[in-house]
Amino acid sequence: MTWRLDASAADFEESFKALLSTKREAAQDVDDTVRDIIADVAARGDEALIDLSKKFDHIDLAQTGIALTKAEIDAAEARVPKETLAALDLAHERIAAFHERQRPQDLRFADDAGVELGWRWSALESVGLYVPGGTASYPSSVLMNAVPAKVAGVERLVMVVPAPHGVIDPLVLAAAKRAHVDEVYRVGGAQAVAALAYGTKTIHPVAKIVGPGNAWVAAAKRRVFGLVGIDMIAGPSEILVLADKTANPEWVAIDLLAQAEHDESAQSILITDDAAFADATAAAVERQLETLSRREIATRSWREFGAIIVTKSLADSIPLADRIAAEHLEIVSEDAEALAAKVRNAGAIFIGAYTPEAIGDYVGGSNHVLPTARSARFSSGLSVLDFMKRTSILKCDASSIRAIGPAAVALGDAERLQAHARSVAVRLDQRGA
Amino acid sequence: MTWRLDASAADFEESFKALLSTKREAAQDVDDTVRDIIADVAARGDEALIDLSKKFDHIDLAQTGIALTKAEIDAAEARVPKETLAALDLAHERIAAFHERQRPQDLRFADDAGVELGWRWSALESVGLYVPGGTASYPSSVLMNAVPAKVAGVERLVMVVPAPHGVIDPLVLAAAKRAHVDEVYRVGGAQAVAALAYGTKTIHPVAKIVGPGNAWVAAAKRRVFGLVGIDMIAGPSEILVLADKTANPEWVAIDLLAQAEHDESAQSILITDDAAFADATAAAVERQLETLSRREIATRSWREFGAIIVTKSLADSIPLADRIAAEHLEIVSEDAEALAAKVRNAGAIFIGAYTPEAIGDYVGGSNHVLPTARSARFSSGLSVLDFMKRTSILKCDASSIRAIGPAAVALGDAERLQAHARSVAVRLDQRGA
Repeated sequence: MTWRLDASAADFEESFKALLSTKREAAQDVDDTVRDIIADVAARGDEALIDLSKKFDHIDLAQTGIALTKAEIDAAEARVPKETLAALDLAHERIAAFHERQRPQDLRFADDAGVELGWRWSALESVGLYVPGGTASYPSSVLMNAVPAKVAGVERLVMVVPAPHGVIDPLVLAAAKRAHVDEVYRVGGAQAVAALAYGTKTIHPVAKIVGPGNAWVAAAKRRVFGLVGIDMIAGPSEILVLADKTANPEWVAIDLLAQAEHDESAQSILITDDAAFADATAAAVERQLETLSRREIATRSWREFGAIIVTKSLADSIPLADRIAAEHLEIVSEDAEALAAKVRNAGAIFIGAYTPEAIGDYVGGSNHVLPTARSARFSSGLSVLDFMKRTSILKCDASSIRAIGPAAVALGDAERLQAHARSVAVRLDQRGA
Repeated sequence: MTWRLDASAADFEESFKALLSTKREAAQDVDDTVRDIIADVAARGDEALIDLSKKFDHIDLAQTGIALTKAEIDAAEARVPKETLAALDLAHERIAAFHERQRPQDLRFADDAGVELGWRWSALESVGLYVPGGTASYPSSVLMNAVPAKVAGVERLVMVVPAPHGVIDPLVLAAAKRAHVDEVYRVGGAQAVAALAYGTKTIHPVAKIVGPGNAWVAAAKRRVFGLVGIDMIAGPSEILVLADKTANPEWVAIDLLAQAEHDESAQSILITDDAAFADATAAAVERQLETLSRREIATRSWREFGAIIVTKSLADSIPLADRIAAEHLEIVSEDAEALAAKVRNAGAIFIGAYTPEAIGDYVGGSNHVLPTARSARFSSGLSVLDFMKRTSILKCDASSIRAIGPAAVALGDAERLQAHARSVAVRLDQRGA
């Protein structure tokens, strides 16, 4: 049954804690298999990719080639309806425009002591983008991962996507073409992650791997982390809607269902200060559920993880929202702006009745790769910064080191790091060591 | 023997690859032990901390208390020489001034379609700082981790530090006091990490855990990642010096040794375009090694991982420097600025003869927590941003959703996410679903 909590109930804190600590994903113990797959690819390269793709994806890469040709990508694009391509174009344009604003500034300055300090941002040389196959293969996610990488200036953006029985969603390839992905390989699973991290004859290694994937992909990313960078490990999606009685229960219901239809582990939560609105929305959810093509998935998600919480006021809901730290937070109220300003933990906030979360999934322009599973308490959505790194810069001269060097010598001595202290002291003395 | 490579040799590429792929740390298999420790602390809280600290740190926390009192911290500070406290004060002031410049900007704007977009940065609510005990207990690292957290606005900054046989370095406590650390607990190892992640009666949980530690601490951080945020997993330290014959070989030698004295796994590499300078520096290293109190550690590091590479020109060294992607890069040449501008991968660059790396360790002001083990290819040093997170903001009205909504409906349909498409469509229709 969908959770129903009343914030004024005596056992509310206990129930709310239980809701927060619900495990939504069964941990799959795939780590040993993944370790073996990675070792195989690291040792045998393309041959391992060919063998593993035969086994898992029922495709003979020795026949098809591992890399997709430009002609294949163009042919796939030609199969996509014009209207869909136009929508992809609008999405691409808006995502690029938003992310252009995230380019960071370099800095260089001299302080009062004459020490020059600063930093310089540079793009990663190469990035691998994992794209899932099958029903979780979303062209919008290709744009959301690839566009910030290209805005950052990544020169080599490599996409891997499984081709079960030879099939890749043409929309995914059309999105890759729009986002200026440089190389596309028809390989998936832990073997694709291993190829990106260790490199094979065909797939050169990258500096960082991003993109969503199943338990095998996630386990492989965790394993290669350190050798290459990785993005966050995405969990199942979630939405929290804060709404008062001015909201349209039918609209809120479909927003809750848009999250629930993703995945049986997705979670949709409504917090409202109006019990009648809560009832009306619950009823609307039940009615609309019946009309959805993905009603089985959405029903399971809503029954098991869905929740409606009634509070005294929406202001009272803010501390709860901060504890939930939702990936997506929709606020529908005349006070939406003021309430949004008070929220600390959320991946993204969607303000007002005319901002359904799905707008942000596709064409809003901001990134839809957002922190899940309460990680908005400590992390942010994907951005241009995830595809750049900062090198700090320090420069002293004979005068400025005399201003600050003695303190460095004192601290080096205090930490019993003699060579540290001496490396500064010899410059103060202006003589050899 | 220290590596010696000649970039003009026929087998150079092979030797350079061997140097790059040298394993500097034996992987310690502590994962099972760490899993049990974490489960114990999650289940038994403070009692587990007391039992484990008896076993590992030979201290009875039931007697001493888990938390340090303000009086204990003040008493420790009183034992630190005034000169050292003054050096800590200068370091604190300079680190704070530099990091103040890293505070990010919020953004809010309306685009041509009338869609409002933006983001808002906020500080993490709480952060745990792990400080190692024994010889790896560095007050400078306390400042480098704590100051950016406080500049970011973290309200609750919690430090954990083991107290083997009851002892904590008073300098570490003096640094914590200066950096406005809010709570200090005398507990270390995987049990301290577990307490920060899961919380106990005494230690409330935090949102993120930062700071260096041994193999147990690193394994524990990897395990709790997801439940809380973690910083990078630090590997052994390294320096790359690019120097031409204008450099002072004695100065370069002591800089190489300042890295080598950290740890037997530390790595010091010199690249120069002058074979005679290479020889002179090698000889200076040997001479100075003998004079160091930590000569055994430094000798082992220099013999096993130290390297001298001779190239045709320093410009030729840049691609090598990018492949090494050193944590610390020192450039000593009249062209130092121009060479630095060409480097892509480095944690920090120290420019010119008067900027020994140790200046950056203590009082330069920039952060000394930097990416190790070639991870400067994809990551950055610690900054204020590591203690903040970004919430994106999206707001449409009835007019702007009409401008961009149809494309969202098209993409929702194309991805077969019917509720996604419908949640936008109902707002376009201006009616219920």
